[in-house]
Amino acid sequence: MNTSSRSLVLPAALPLDGGGVLPRVEIAYETYGTLAEDGSNAILLCHALTGDQYVASAHPLTGKPGWWERMVGPGKPIDTDRFHVICANVIGSCMGSTGPASLADDGQPYAMRFPVITIRDMVRAHVGLLDALGVERLHAVVGGSMGGMQALSLAANWPERAERVLVVASTSRHSAQNIGFHELGRQAIMADPRWQGGDYYAGETPDNGLAVARMAAHITYLSEEALTAKFGRNLQDREAKTFGFEADFQVESYLRYQGSGFTQRFDANSYLYITRAMDYFDLAEEHGGRLADAFANSAARFCLVSFDSDWLYPTAESRHVVHALNAAGAPVSFVELSAPHGHDSFLLDVPALDRVVEGFLK
Amino acid sequence: MNTSSRSLVLPAALPLDGGGVLPRVEIAYETYGTLAEDGSNAILLCHALTGDQYVASAHPLTGKPGWWERMVGPGKPIDTDRFHVICANVIGSCMGSTGPASLADDGQPYAMRFPVITIRDMVRAHVGLLDALGVERLHAVVGGSMGGMQALSLAANWPERAERVLVVASTSRHSAQNIGFHELGRQAIMADPRWQGGDYYAGETPDNGLAVARMAAHITYLSEEALTAKFGRNLQDREAKTFGFEADFQVESYLRYQGSGFTQRFDANSYLYITRAMDYFDLAEEHGGRLADAFANSAARFCLVSFDSDWLYPTAESRHVVHALNAAGAPVSFVELSAPHGHDSFLLDVPALDRVVEGFLK
Repeated sequence: MNTSSRSLVLPAALPLDGGGVLPRVEIAYETYGTLAEDGSNAILLCHALTGDQYVASAHPLTGKPGWWERMVGPGKPIDTDRFHVICANVIGSCMGSTGPASLADDGQPYAMRFPVITIRDMVRAHVGLLDALGVERLHAVVGGSMGGMQALSLAANWPERAERVLVVASTSRHSAQNIGFHELGRQAIMADPRWQGGDYYAGETPDNGLAVARMAAHITYLSEEALTAKFGRNLQDREAKTFGFEADFQVESYLRYQGSGFTQRFDANSYLYITRAMDYFDLAEEHGGRLADAFANSAARFCLVSFDSDWLYPTAESRHVVHALNAAGAPVSFVELSAPHGHDSFLLDVPALDRVVEGFLK
Repeated sequence: MNTSSRSLVLPAALPLDGGGVLPRVEIAYETYGTLAEDGSNAILLCHALTGDQYVASAHPLTGKPGWWERMVGPGKPIDTDRFHVICANVIGSCMGSTGPASLADDGQPYAMRFPVITIRDMVRAHVGLLDALGVERLHAVVGGSMGGMQALSLAANWPERAERVLVVASTSRHSAQNIGFHELGRQAIMADPRWQGGDYYAGETPDNGLAVARMAAHITYLSEEALTAKFGRNLQDREAKTFGFEADFQVESYLRYQGSGFTQRFDANSYLYITRAMDYFDLAEEHGGRLADAFANSAARFCLVSFDSDWLYPTAESRHVVHALNAAGAPVSFVELSAPHGHDSFLLDVPALDRVVEGFLK
């Protein structure tokens, strides 16, 4: 597969929803497959909260396979023999695109001086990247979870840029419960004394707080059924309970591992900024309070996919978007897939999803 | 109402499921109403994780009304004109009964030298209290959430001690998801540098970690629908988002308030020990792996109540207990009540619950 890791600096400062600008915006991105001469075969793939541009290539820090290798590649549902796939690290993140760890004009990391951004700001940077790459109109924009928010935002705010919009396990707005889980993660990070108001880049990082935030999030990514099937009340490498506070149960051990592993690849301040952008996301509010109006100028075809075991962004959230698209007269297909894994189903082995993705992108 | 606040020291050391003993066990308890001369009208009320003995009297630290004042009192569903209600602080807690903040033999707080206890250990202490009070047989044992676990444990292990067993919004075992949420709370506490391995009693307390633990738990106590109805995406005392990290949303402000308020009345080490006891709870495992066997010797009448919006201990958990009671041939009634508040429904205004409680205790 023709893979390329690159980054570029947008030619102009990026205006932000919060009122300010980001003066210098670098975008790190991966591409897979070859762009057709007429530029008609580009797919923008948008990543989730803790995702990155390494959708189908090994992560440079962890060495792990790309997060959607099962979906993206030659002959795969997003077929890189046919399509030119672009996946960019969102601004605010920490894998090469400008974020809180980047240096500000004074040569010091932004840290908490980084402006609070929105999902639309992330997409504005993506659009800047597409402009720089000469991709005027996408064959499709595709995303799961926060990636789906970006896909919806692109469809609503730059309706001429994508012919197809594929939104998996996502929502048009963050619920009170969604905000609550994010807020507890942020409080865990900020409670870590190593966070130091965000100015930790020269010293130790707030790994304890970030690990707790990740543990909380991870519970929400899996269904209760999936946790029970995977771990139940099984003990970890022992015959009996120890009557102590070690990780007696497999689920404890698993969550600790998820938490501590995460801190090796992710910046705590990025976690603050990206969760904030997600909490601020309310596509209807951006468009006068009526979600259908967000899609008034769209000529794209839409496909929404939800999972029956996803309690983070349950099917009702996708249906809410579908109803708005119906009201706007947009062509939309919608399917709720049955999969046991919860929200994480969009990343896992769900053959029905492969078929939906492949069929919709044809 | 005839109310009494007392405490007593059990006459003997308390053997523990973990193998050790607690040499000196103090039990702080409240009583309401008068004990009949034949001792036949006593009800043992068991409190939840962060509850206490102040079920129908003002909390001495917060001044707030008792946690079940709507249920317990003269003419109320648990009628103190008829019944003598006993509510004891569980061991491991911090409102007067022996726990990690209590002094060990060396005159220093136990802290993490306190033994890991189980739900059955808590109930063993309750039974010691009943012995000391001369209450041989309870009219009923009643509890919600962790209180329900205690009621089930008493029924299984001291089957002769209660004529009626009322279990509200509870479970016979902690699921992987339940354990996961508790583990993240424990990790938040232990990540707070003020925790200092539990030895914080002479200095500052790990309030930040405890507040994060409480925030996480609080989200699980409410349904998604309740959070949406109560807060939605409403902003807190402001007209627009601030593009900062203050509590813009009401739900953030609420959770921060819940977290910080909690630290003023609860000991972080107690939170560790009691959550551990709950995670260890598996009534079937205690009885050879078959839940019905736990109730083989019971002659009590049972009543199980669940709430349709409770996702912490969903109806399926109550039904699981009911099936076991059926298999054991025990008389049991079971009702799933419709209430929007989630797990917290058992503490809130649900008139149908009042009727069930009143009817069952007759």
